[in-house]
Amino acid sequence: VDKVKVAILGATGFTGEKLVEILLKHSKAQAVYLASRILESAPYAQIFTHFSGKTNLNCEPLDIEKAAQISDILFLSLPHTVSMEFAPYLLKKGKKVIDLSADYRLKDTVVYEKYYKVSHKDKVNLKKAVYGMPEIYKKEVKKARLIANPGCYPTSIILALYPLLKQGFIEGKIIADSKSAITGAGRNAITKYPYTDISDNLWVYKAFKHQHVPEVESILKSASNKAVKLLFVPQVIEAKAGIYSTIYVSFKNKVTEEKIRNTYEKYYKNCPFVRLKEDFPKLKETAGTNFCDIGFALTEDGKAAVIASSIDNLIKGAAGCAVQNMNIMCGFEETLGLL
Amino acid sequence: VDKVKVAILGATGFTGEKLVEILLKHSKAQAVYLASRILESAPYAQIFTHFSGKTNLNCEPLDIEKAAQISDILFLSLPHTVSMEFAPYLLKKGKKVIDLSADYRLKDTVVYEKYYKVSHKDKVNLKKAVYGMPEIYKKEVKKARLIANPGCYPTSIILALYPLLKQGFIEGKIIADSKSAITGAGRNAITKYPYTDISDNLWVYKAFKHQHVPEVESILKSASNKAVKLLFVPQVIEAKAGIYSTIYVSFKNKVTEEKIRNTYEKYYKNCPFVRLKEDFPKLKETAGTNFCDIGFALTEDGKAAVIASSIDNLIKGAAGCAVQNMNIMCGFEETLGLL
Amino acid sequence: VDKVKVAILGATGFTGEKLVEILLKHSKAQAVYLASRILESAPYAQIFTHFSGKTNLNCEPLDIEKAAQISDILFLSLPHTVSMEFAPYLLKKGKKVIDLSADYRLKDTVVYEKYYKVSHKDKVNLKKAVYGMPEIYKKEVKKARLIANPGCYPTSIILALYPLLKQGFIEGKIIADSKSAITGAGRNAITKYPYTDISDNLWVYKAFKHQHVPEVESILKSASNKAVKLLFVPQVIEAKAGIYSTIYVSFKNKVTEEKIRNTYEKYYKNCPFVRLKEDFPKLKETAGTNFCDIGFALTEDGKAAVIASSIDNLIKGAAGCAVQNMNIMCGFEETLGLL
Amino acid sequence: VDKVKVAILGATGFTGEKLVEILLKHSKAQAVYLASRILESAPYAQIFTHFSGKTNLNCEPLDIEKAAQISDILFLSLPHTVSMEFAPYLLKKGKKVIDLSADYRLKDTVVYEKYYKVSHKDKVNLKKAVYGMPEIYKKEVKKARLIANPGCYPTSIILALYPLLKQGFIEGKIIADSKSAITGAGRNAITKYPYTDISDNLWVYKAFKHQHVPEVESILKSASNKAVKLLFVPQVIEAKAGIYSTIYVSFKNKVTEEKIRNTYEKYYKNCPFVRLKEDFPKLKETAGTNFCDIGFALTEDGKAAVIASSIDNLIKGAAGCAVQNMNIMCGFEETLGLL
Repeated sequence: VDKVKVAILGATGFTGEKLVEILLKHSKAQAVYLASRILESAPYAQIFTHFSGKTNLNCEPLDIEKAAQISDILFLSLPHTVSMEFAPYLLKKGKKVIDLSADYRLKDTVVYEKYYKVSHKDKVNLKKAVYGMPEIYKKEVKKARLIANPGCYPTSIILALYPLLKQGFIEGKIIADSKSAITGAGRNAITKYPYTDISDNLWVYKAFKHQHVPEVESILKSASNKAVKLLFVPQVIEAKAGIYSTIYVSFKNKVTEEKIRNTYEKYYKNCPFVRLKEDFPKLKETAGTNFCDIGFALTEDGKAAVIASSIDNLIKGAAGCAVQNMNIMCGFEETLGLL
Repeated sequence: VDKVKVAILGATGFTGEKLVEILLKHSKAQAVYLASRILESAPYAQIFTHFSGKTNLNCEPLDIEKAAQISDILFLSLPHTVSMEFAPYLLKKGKKVIDLSADYRLKDTVVYEKYYKVSHKDKVNLKKAVYGMPEIYKKEVKKARLIANPGCYPTSIILALYPLLKQGFIEGKIIADSKSAITGAGRNAITKYPYTDISDNLWVYKAFKHQHVPEVESILKSASNKAVKLLFVPQVIEAKAGIYSTIYVSFKNKVTEEKIRNTYEKYYKNCPFVRLKEDFPKLKETAGTNFCDIGFALTEDGKAAVIASSIDNLIKGAAGCAVQNMNIMCGFEETLGLL
Repeated sequence: VDKVKVAILGATGFTGEKLVEILLKHSKAQAVYLASRILESAPYAQIFTHFSGKTNLNCEPLDIEKAAQISDILFLSLPHTVSMEFAPYLLKKGKKVIDLSADYRLKDTVVYEKYYKVSHKDKVNLKKAVYGMPEIYKKEVKKARLIANPGCYPTSIILALYPLLKQGFIEGKIIADSKSAITGAGRNAITKYPYTDISDNLWVYKAFKHQHVPEVESILKSASNKAVKLLFVPQVIEAKAGIYSTIYVSFKNKVTEEKIRNTYEKYYKNCPFVRLKEDFPKLKETAGTNFCDIGFALTEDGKAAVIASSIDNLIKGAAGCAVQNMNIMCGFEETLGLL
Repeated sequence: VDKVKVAILGATGFTGEKLVEILLKHSKAQAVYLASRILESAPYAQIFTHFSGKTNLNCEPLDIEKAAQISDILFLSLPHTVSMEFAPYLLKKGKKVIDLSADYRLKDTVVYEKYYKVSHKDKVNLKKAVYGMPEIYKKEVKKARLIANPGCYPTSIILALYPLLKQGFIEGKIIADSKSAITGAGRNAITKYPYTDISDNLWVYKAFKHQHVPEVESILKSASNKAVKLLFVPQVIEAKAGIYSTIYVSFKNKVTEEKIRNTYEKYYKNCPFVRLKEDFPKLKETAGTNFCDIGFALTEDGKAAVIASSIDNLIKGAAGCAVQNMNIMCGFEETLGLL
């Protein structure tokens, strides 16, 4: 069988590396082009020596024309504001594009410019971009040519809330207390944090000001048909991988555990990567997987709840979800290469 | 100078061990009696070999009469429901008692019985017990003969909230999302969690149902003169030591950062172990110390805030605070042996 | 295509769990029977909840007749001394057996009895068992009906030494300073080590007395055609996975780096899971893989060397190697399901 | 009582920071001057916020004249090659100097120049410098005006070997397989190692080529009165603190466990910081302490042994030992401020 030919642009970041790892095991896709904004070509297994014995591919200086020529579908694992420089050309050439940056996630360019400090340069494609959260937009993903792959924090928060908001249960502001492994900051950023700063540590950063707030609020608004206010407090923890969000909501009316459980089960019935837990999820159980585990508890009066969701930030929160989107776009089984 | 003679009953738990460690370095107190509910006497440095070269004391089977005879002040680092069997005798003998269990923390015995599943056996002394949080009750501690040393989670939550409640700023329910090192569970309990269960892991447990809820609510009620509703969600994290509480509050009226900062500074002016941070605290900076670090951020509208507090669960959350109480009770400098 | 039907007896240990994980992703083998010495049948994904969404198999009380009936090849991931109770029946029924215990590794039953404290009960099959180290015995593995899968420490030590001994370079005693993740002790044993005992810790145990010494010495003897003396000092480190052996050897004659490098390269030319490194291996680069990474340095006089080898103790050191053996026995590509 | 006035030059490295921490708790010494090669003066508790509430000292740009003026004894926690620029002036001014760099450790300047790549600039004082290992040179330390504080690896290796070499037991080359926490590399160096490179990792570096080899060999030679050959292989491990050396020796004649044990006990009888263990030491038991723990095992034939020693690399391996030297030089109790 002919495999789908894929390119990974930005193959040396944490997300790019995870994409290569997943795609090398994929039975219906073949990585044919790895590129990064580097100066000279080098064997990928020389840059990341743990790939030795797994691939002979080179990682090359990014050549967008070559990328378009030899691949059918392209993952853009590039920094925010860089993706939108390359996506238009690729789309014009008829390629499918899965963008893992924030460039196509926010429909409102004013908000984009507020958080990312540059003007949006590709408003035409922005309008057509599909938010690649398969649990919510599978139909749209199937037909999409440009996917805006969700952010890691938003994935953990939106999947925990969407069914309950869709059902109209929640009222008032929502609090998301999210804990993330340091890898979420990206390969360049984490050089600021030597081992001694992370081990045995934990701290709040960017409280109420993180750039993922508008992404979450806009998707949740589409669920509830009215504005949703999110108080988002991200925290760094010592962990190899993962995001664990504890989310606090109030209900319009008293609810029962059964009602909430049924709502989740019904909504995620056909979602192979969402697991509703009997108890609360454990961060370690989603590490290294594409699963999002969800658990919850109600207050005694049934008027409020804490919902916890757990994902691997680099897999379900980035590379794994991107491959899940590719599977759907290509008509493959949704779980291919991801279980 | 004659040193105060201290006994540690329950010297083999995590808290007892930490007490011994602190007291061995204390210049005005001398550990004269270490006991545990063990069968045979053994050198303490044989039970915990890292004490070799530091102490020649034995750890003995608990003999309450001997304990009373040779010591002036006694730390009860015993399981809940056990302390109240020994405290009455010691108090009758005129000794000072610092109890690190929950037995004398809850004035309401109905609540005590609900959470600890036994009837309270010492209601007489319960009435006189002083809640040993020096930042709030220093005057009372000074004169106390029986101290109920605060729980670890309550310490981190109460210190973060007390000044703001006292000032009447807060309204509505309060959410405390607290993360604790596994040592908080005690030496016996953690044998259930081998290394592989803790490393890279994090999970919610006892959501809304933890036994520390009534302890916090009763103290906070005394600050605000009305009932306070706490939604408390404890979590286990991978860390050697510490509790980090991320606390969410709403304000009656819009506040400014300056106003909140001034309130804390004024209230904790004479509290050597509370540090108000410019930014958010880091768990690691309080590990191994008796400090409680506090930081906060307001929402843009000034109507809500996140407050984070960080302590070492075994020191400020247990043994360190107990020694701080001893210092105050004995007329020593509050920080002696703790800086 | 019809898949090979496999059974895993002892599916609830660390190794059994890893076997299930690997086999669920294998394209030409299908786990049809999971059993353990438990009392009642239960969904495997209920025992290990992280398997939820991956398999619907039950784990059943071990029924050796049923196991033989429904499977073609059986992995015995049972404690030492237990495997040899079940293997004879399975072999009689014409099944292929891969035993991950020590029961069929030592041809000398006197030595077996010295280290494992029981008489060997299956000397007939012991004679026919093939030591399943594919890098050395691939031909024998291909025809084998009973595989003695190597121990974890032996794998890391033998692969580092075999080519050099075969070539006759080494003389005198060999020192192996090996560091292992605690998971090597097995699921039952590690409950003795709570998190606080492992984190930030490292210690020597069973110096010169570990049961893996005779296993290594007997294989190395077959390489060098004379007795080899191994001084083996195992150590526990804080790590999620892996064994790192630092091995010290003396040479009969002065050697060059090139000569040693060539020897390894020639010997492991067709071994997809041995990687000779330019520099020293890193434990992390083999974690989660079936690779054995090897690096070395010579002393200035070329008369001695340190060789370091790194593996994942549960994969190349157990489950991964077992599947590699299965692949060879079944005529599959050696790397199938392992890259 | 008047306290000894101490200065710490190089107060912002890991070692300098640990010195400050120890000296702030010392009852007979007072830190009066903290300096670093920085541009502007700043509160020390602002540079390292965890010192907030503990000290109001500033850290100042290094002014050697001021340092000499206001202090009696100076700790030089400066990079190699920098200490020897400042020491001569301080000695001329009659000050006592404890140098924690390598500048005064190697009497042979040819060797110094080979490893540190610069000519030695202070051969006069080099001759008079005392190697500050109190367990061996206490008499000399007492009278010294310039201390060369030992390196971290050398401390762990020399203390394990000295008595046995002194007694003439050992013959042939010695192998030291040492594992160190990353902090040993110094604050600047570790920025090259983000959290993800250290966690779950372990690797050999500078095998046989580390700059600490000649330091160890020269001290051991003085014990055995003949050249000693050390094969030293350092390794980085994941741990907050510590060095664990496993050392392999051969004996001239068969020895017994009792003989070795007695030799250690006799030699270290008056050494409060050496603990001979019944079993092997554990890295964690020396973390945060000034102890060096030693344990050993003999081969069955009594002709060889493995000796393991464990220290905290920043305390017994640097700052703690420096304060121990200060105590001896000032006539204080050797353990003051260190237990």
